[in-house]
Amino acid sequence: MPASPIRKLVPLGDAAKKRGVHVYHLNIGQPDIETPPEFFQAVRDYREKVVAYGNSQGNAVFIDSIVGYYRGLDIPLTPKQVLITTGGSEAITFAMLAVAEPGEEIIVFEPFYTNYNGFAIMGGITLVPVETRAEDGFHLPSEEDLARCITPKTRAIVICNPNNPTGTVLREDELAMIGRLAVAHGLYILSDEVYREFIYEGGTRSMLQLEGLEQHVVVMDSLSKRYSLCGGRMGCIISRNEALMEVFLRFGQARLCTASLEQIGSAALVDAGAKYFEPMISEYRARRDATFEELMNIPGVVCRKPSGAFYIMAKLPVRDVEDFAAWMLTDFQVDGETTMVAPGPGFYATPGRGTDEVRLAYVLDAEACRRAVRILAKGIETYNARGPHAPNAPKARTQ
Amino acid sequence: MPASPIRKLVPLGDAAKKRGVHVYHLNIGQPDIETPPEFFQAVRDYREKVVAYGNSQGNAVFIDSIVGYYRGLDIPLTPKQVLITTGGSEAITFAMLAVAEPGEEIIVFEPFYTNYNGFAIMGGITLVPVETRAEDGFHLPSEEDLARCITPKTRAIVICNPNNPTGTVLREDELAMIGRLAVAHGLYILSDEVYREFIYEGGTRSMLQLEGLEQHVVVMDSLSKRYSLCGGRMGCIISRNEALMEVFLRFGQARLCTASLEQIGSAALVDAGAKYFEPMISEYRARRDATFEELMNIPGVVCRKPSGAFYIMAKLPVRDVEDFAAWMLTDFQVDGETTMVAPGPGFYATPGRGTDEVRLAYVLDAEACRRAVRILAKGIETYNARGPHAPNAPKARTQ
Repeated sequence: MPASPIRKLVPLGDAAKKRGVHVYHLNIGQPDIETPPEFFQAVRDYREKVVAYGNSQGNAVFIDSIVGYYRGLDIPLTPKQVLITTGGSEAITFAMLAVAEPGEEIIVFEPFYTNYNGFAIMGGITLVPVETRAEDGFHLPSEEDLARCITPKTRAIVICNPNNPTGTVLREDELAMIGRLAVAHGLYILSDEVYREFIYEGGTRSMLQLEGLEQHVVVMDSLSKRYSLCGGRMGCIISRNEALMEVFLRFGQARLCTASLEQIGSAALVDAGAKYFEPMISEYRARRDATFEELMNIPGVVCRKPSGAFYIMAKLPVRDVEDFAAWMLTDFQVDGETTMVAPGPGFYATPGRGTDEVRLAYVLDAEACRRAVRILAKGIETYNARGPHAPNAPKARTQ
Repeated sequence: MPASPIRKLVPLGDAAKKRGVHVYHLNIGQPDIETPPEFFQAVRDYREKVVAYGNSQGNAVFIDSIVGYYRGLDIPLTPKQVLITTGGSEAITFAMLAVAEPGEEIIVFEPFYTNYNGFAIMGGITLVPVETRAEDGFHLPSEEDLARCITPKTRAIVICNPNNPTGTVLREDELAMIGRLAVAHGLYILSDEVYREFIYEGGTRSMLQLEGLEQHVVVMDSLSKRYSLCGGRMGCIISRNEALMEVFLRFGQARLCTASLEQIGSAALVDAGAKYFEPMISEYRARRDATFEELMNIPGVVCRKPSGAFYIMAKLPVRDVEDFAAWMLTDFQVDGETTMVAPGPGFYATPGRGTDEVRLAYVLDAEACRRAVRILAKGIETYNARGPHAPNAPKARTQ
């Protein structure tokens, strides 16, 4: 079981704060947006005397609210096609464990949400990483290249759309390609759509909207980002494949139910959503624009402007980004401030990939994002200008 | 993945209720005791604006309160030896997945908490069931017999003390035997102690109190029963083995954190506990006595009086207990009432075992328990007195 690469810089960040340094947290996707007050109100209004076991599938009122949310997206679902999970995390776990036995394979696109790896390890499942590149805006490889990665042991393809960590939004032709491959090779499509609402231009579709894939598609969803409810651990898993839903329900029965209070609070969120999303998305668009603009001012940075989620994956002109990210916390500051980023290698399964990339989460207001990236720029300059005796100094980089 | 055997009678119970029949639920361990008001008050007092990700190990205040609770039991722990989990369920999952790879073995004593099986399946782990018997009060087999079940693939022994589903409390010599075997064969001891407070005479010890087992013992704990907080999904996993705690933390990091509000509420419960437990245990003792006394009035029932948890596992004089339990819901009532029980086979991994046993959860007040068991008695009499054409009729039993 690997240590969380996002979380392993945490002690260095904590130490910097103890020294009085202000740390801009671009390292973790924790939004600063307020959770809708409807959530708290519903929790405070809870008047049961016993916090009893709930239904393994989830609270019926909450499930109905999820069905209502999807109806608003023109995606008709029945309550039986939805199972409430403990965050998107449990949805991913159930999906992977249901479709693959120990030793079987699931295809993921690198870079990918780092915890896919942890969930696969729990089930002894092999993740097969397929590369995508910053230069291509992290779009998918060709159908031909992808088909070559499918083996007799392949059971599913995971997509994350909009993508964490790259912010890439998949095009219609990419979704269609995944659909064709799934049908041709008898694979499941595990579609992580937790950033669905976070799209800044253009659009995309849920895999649930593609025809002919009813038996193939599993959507893994979460309220964490959409309603700024990360600590609530409320998500769901959705499929029109009845046999698969039965397996998910059995996993659900093994762990009995999900937390009661957050289900009560979350059931109140769907109506709050419509008025909540629009200003939130405008706010994130401004943050993305500010972050990207400042990044483009750094000589040697490679990235395309992403259209979704709230992440940018960028190549930086440093040789060892893990050392650099640690150094930013231990040795660098500008006017008492520094910036914390998530090093690229944590988002890759293939050793040696992502060593000059970072993921930036633009979860602070636009001005703070600008300031954080300017500090990053100065950090890169200073880091690379250190003498030849410093580890990873410029001289070493030319080797 | 098996369907939950406890939950598969639920539709029949629901149908009985729709027909206006009152159903006594002795089938599921859902206490009717009120959750301490301190829990609800702490949740209502929560004033954060954002439900943000928590620490993967758990809320520091809540962890400290758990350490305080164990200090009260004379079990010194450091906060690093505790990780908060989503119920006892996640604690069991983490424990099993951390100690065994796919294909490796974990010993459990039959009958056992049915969901152990589901968690093992998730990790491709083989549970090796070792029989215990109603006639022996479900106490453990001899050290010699148990040692014969240990193979080169064995990684751990699970004990549940006090036991679900049998109510059996292990004696000191049994705990010591498990400890000796673990040391001799290099095994982990996964000790499920969620019913620790539910002891009606005599006593037992936590595996954490046995000396020389620091590197072997993992305790899986939960607040669900102790504070009537089943729907809160709050538990923890405890070990003094640092390497193992590091693995648990990595599993914890993969799923990010547990639900925020229930951690806030639960942190307020430890102080509430002392005054809460004593009347609760007295109440359960009265329920157990009533349930056991009525059971003993049924001709042909075999069981020993259990000393802990809130379950009794009893052999009933019926040939096929699953058919009988369903029939109680579909075809039987006394004055508009019937009793729902959990059939024995669900608590066994070995096919054919437990077919004349049921688990009774005495989670209703003593008078309701009496009434429910009297209805059960009449049900057995009527079921067995049905004509020779009925399935499983008495004639068939004599074969």
